[in-house]
Amino acid sequence: MILALEIERLADCSGTQLPRTTIDALKNLHPSDIAEALETSGCSPSQLVEILFQIGNHKSCDAFAQLDIETQQACLEATHAQTMLRFVENMEPDDRVDLLKAVDEDVREAIMPLIAQAERNDIRRLWNYAEGTAGAAMTTEYAVLPQHVTVAEALEQMRLQAPNKETIYTIHITDSQRRLLGILSLRDLIMSKPRITLDAIMQTRVISVPHDMAEEDVAAVIAKYDLLAVPVVDGDNRLLGIITVDDVIDIMEAENTEDFQRISAVVPFDEGYFKRPLPQLFWSRFLWLAVLLFTSLLSTTIMEMNSAVIHQMVALAFFIPMVTGTCGNAGTQSATMVVRALALGEVGPGDFLRVFRRELFMGLALGITLGLMAYFRVYLQDQNMLLGWTVGVALLATLLTANLTGALMPLVLKKLRLDPALTAGPFIATVIDAVGISLYFQIAILLMTVMK
Amino acid sequence: MILALEIERLADCSGTQLPRTTIDALKNLHPSDIAEALETSGCSPSQLVEILFQIGNHKSCDAFAQLDIETQQACLEATHAQTMLRFVENMEPDDRVDLLKAVDEDVREAIMPLIAQAERNDIRRLWNYAEGTAGAAMTTEYAVLPQHVTVAEALEQMRLQAPNKETIYTIHITDSQRRLLGILSLRDLIMSKPRITLDAIMQTRVISVPHDMAEEDVAAVIAKYDLLAVPVVDGDNRLLGIITVDDVIDIMEAENTEDFQRISAVVPFDEGYFKRPLPQLFWSRFLWLAVLLFTSLLSTTIMEMNSAVIHQMVALAFFIPMVTGTCGNAGTQSATMVVRALALGEVGPGDFLRVFRRELFMGLALGITLGLMAYFRVYLQDQNMLLGWTVGVALLATLLTANLTGALMPLVLKKLRLDPALTAGPFIATVIDAVGISLYFQIAILLMTVMK
Repeated sequence: MILALEIERLADCSGTQLPRTTIDALKNLHPSDIAEALETSGCSPSQLVEILFQIGNHKSCDAFAQLDIETQQACLEATHAQTMLRFVENMEPDDRVDLLKAVDEDVREAIMPLIAQAERNDIRRLWNYAEGTAGAAMTTEYAVLPQHVTVAEALEQMRLQAPNKETIYTIHITDSQRRLLGILSLRDLIMSKPRITLDAIMQTRVISVPHDMAEEDVAAVIAKYDLLAVPVVDGDNRLLGIITVDDVIDIMEAENTEDFQRISAVVPFDEGYFKRPLPQLFWSRFLWLAVLLFTSLLSTTIMEMNSAVIHQMVALAFFIPMVTGTCGNAGTQSATMVVRALALGEVGPGDFLRVFRRELFMGLALGITLGLMAYFRVYLQDQNMLLGWTVGVALLATLLTANLTGALMPLVLKKLRLDPALTAGPFIATVIDAVGISLYFQIAILLMTVMK
Repeated sequence: MILALEIERLADCSGTQLPRTTIDALKNLHPSDIAEALETSGCSPSQLVEILFQIGNHKSCDAFAQLDIETQQACLEATHAQTMLRFVENMEPDDRVDLLKAVDEDVREAIMPLIAQAERNDIRRLWNYAEGTAGAAMTTEYAVLPQHVTVAEALEQMRLQAPNKETIYTIHITDSQRRLLGILSLRDLIMSKPRITLDAIMQTRVISVPHDMAEEDVAAVIAKYDLLAVPVVDGDNRLLGIITVDDVIDIMEAENTEDFQRISAVVPFDEGYFKRPLPQLFWSRFLWLAVLLFTSLLSTTIMEMNSAVIHQMVALAFFIPMVTGTCGNAGTQSATMVVRALALGEVGPGDFLRVFRRELFMGLALGITLGLMAYFRVYLQDQNMLLGWTVGVALLATLLTANLTGALMPLVLKKLRLDPALTAGPFIATVIDAVGISLYFQIAILLMTVMK
C-alpha cells in the first residue's frame, strides 16, 4: 500500500521513469503483490506497461497475468501490439481468451498474427465455449501421457513437461484419440516401482466434467471430492482441458459476490467496489429500486382502497410498519437460507414438499409467538382488544405467507432455470409489504364486524 | 440418491445386515459419495457404523472422515470406543480434534487411551488453539526436510513420507529448531539436478501465516497467491503445521454461509438446511425477529406522536410503505456491497472517507431520480402538490440517510472488531423504517407550514 503511494507520487513527478530503488522493491515482491501495488497506484496504462518493462524478466509477465482484466485491457489498448506480445503469450490460455474477447477488435487483429501458431490454435479452440461453462474456464496446459509408459519414463517426461504445464500433480492418461483412460497423481507416481507401466497403477474411475457444465457446478465437484484439478471432456470422453483448484476459488468468490448482489437487489457486476464506475453502478442499483418503487405502490393503492377503515380507526395505520417489517424480515430469512442451501447443493427443486412442511411449521411457530408479543404490546398500551387482535392475527397470517413465499419461490425459480437469489431480500420484502397490508385490512374489517 | 433410498429401505427391513450387492455398490463409490449416501439414508448411527465395517478396508475410514461432524459424533457416541478407534485414528489431525472436542466427555475419555502415543501428543498440541484460527484449522501431517539434503535424497525421502502426509507437493525446509527456512514445490524438486542441495533451490521468501490468524484471512492469503498449502508458524517462525487448499474451500463456504445468515438476520449455525433441528432453528430466527419487532415499534411510536398530522391528511399514511420500503432497499444495497467488499479485502476501515464520498454522491443521484418519480406518481393521481412534495423530498432525505448508514455502519463494526454482516439486510431496513417515518413527518409539517 505504501509502495503503491510511492509509485503514484514518483510516476506523477518524474514521468514514467521510476528510480532504481523502487523498481528493486517491486522486483522483490510476489507477482500478486506487484499487481496489487500497480493497480492501486493510479498510474496510467502506459505508465504501468513501462514499469512492468523495468521490472523485467518472467516476474513482470506473471504480475501482468495477475492484474484485473479491466487493467490488462487498458494496457493492451494503450500500447503497441509488439510490446505487449510477451505479456499476452505468457498468460494462461483461458485468461488470454477472456482478454482477447474484451479488447477492441482492431487491437485484437493487431496482436493475433504475432502470436505463435500453436498458441493461436489454442485460442481458436477455446474461443467458442460459452462464458460461464467449464470449457471457457479450462486451461489446455495439462500433463498428459500414454498408458504403456513405465513409471521411470513417466517421471522423466514430467521433468520435461513441467515448465509448460499449469500443474503436473495430476497426470492424464489418454489413448491415441485423446480419450481419457485414467488419471494418476504425481504422488502415486513417485511412490510406484520404476518398471511398472501406468495402466497398472492409474485410477480408471475418473471424476471428470462435461465442457458445457456451468462453472459453479464444476466448483462444487472440486470442493466435494477435494481435487486439485478436474479434467474437462467432450461427449466422446475426449480430454479437452483441465480446471485447477485456484481457478475454482476465483469462480466461487465471483459466484458468491453475484449471490450477494442479487440478494440485495443490485444488478450483478464483476468489478470490485471501488472499480465500478459510478454511472454504471448507478444503473445497477437504480433499475431494481425503480422496479421495487412501483411494486411498493401496490401497498399505497391497497391503503387508499381502505381509507374508510383508517378514518374509523387511525391507530390501525400505526402498526402497519411493524407488521410488514417483521414479516418481510421473516421472508428474507427463509429465502436466504433456501438460496444458500441451493447454492451448496443441500436442497434441490425436488425437495419442494419437504421445504413446504418445514417452513409451514416454522412459520406457525414464529407467527404465534411474535403475534402474541405484538398483541400484548398493543393491548398494554392502547387497551384496545380489537386493535390487539387485528395486529396479532395479521402478523401470524402475513408471517406464515411471507415465510412460505420466501422459502418456496427460490425453488420455483431454480426449476425455471432462473437465479434463485433473485427472490431473496428486497424483492420478498416489497411483495410481503403489499400482501401484509392487504391481509391486515381484511382481518381488521372481519374482526370489526365480528366483535361489534 | 437412489442408493441412499435403497440403503434406508434395506436397513429398515433387514436389521443392520445389507445384502452383498448393495455393499459392493457402495464399495465402488468415491468416499465422498459413500458419505453422502449414508447421510441421506436415514439409518441410525449404529447402523451406519455396521455398514462402514461391511465396506471394510481403507475406503470406509475415508468415508467416515467425509461425514458431517454431527454424524461422526453420533456414531462415536453410539458405538464402543474400541470399534471406532480405526476411524478416529485415520482422520486428519485437525478434524480429529474438532470431533473429540464435540463428543461427550466420557466418550472422549474412553477413546483417548486407545489412541497411539504420537497421535495423542498431536491431539494435545492442537487442542489449545482457539476455534476459527489458523492453529485450529491446520494439519500437522506436512512434508519436511533439512536444508543440506540433495535433490536425489529428497526425492527418496518424499517417497517414504508420502503415505503419511496430507500433501507432499509443498516441501518445508526447517533447521534443527523447526524454524522455517524455505519451501520447495515437488515440481521444482523434480526439475532440479539430483546433486544440488535443497538450500540452493528452495524459495526463501515464504508466505506463511501466524497461528492466531483468523481462518478467513488464511483463506484470503491462499486465494490471493494461488497456493496449494500455506505454512502456519509461531512467533519465532517455527513451523507448527500447514493449511491445505481443500480445507480453505470449506472455510470459504462456511464463511460465506455465515455472512448470508447474518445478512438475513439469522443467528449463524453450522449445519445444513435440513440438518438443523427445528427447535434450534426456531431460536436462530426468533431471536433476531423479536429484537427487530421491538425496534420496529419505534416506527409505531413516531406515527402515534404524529397522529394529529395524519388526522389532517390521511393520505400521508398511504405513502409511508413506499418511502420506507424503497429506502430500506437502497440501504440494504449499499450495506451488502460494502460487507462483500470487506470480506474480499477490497475495502478496509481506513477507506471511510472514500466510501462516504462515493455513497453521498450515489445517494443524491438515486434520491433525486427516485424522488422525482415518486413526486409525479403522487401528483398525477391526487393532484396534491403538498403531498407530492412531502413524499418526494422525504424519499430523497431518507434515501440519502439510508444509503450512507448502510455503507458506513459495516466499516464502523469492522473497526470495532464485530462482524460487518450484522448490519446489512433486515437490521438496516428496520432502522431506516423509523428514521424514514420520522423524517417524513418532519418534512410534511414543515411543508404544510410553508405552503399554506
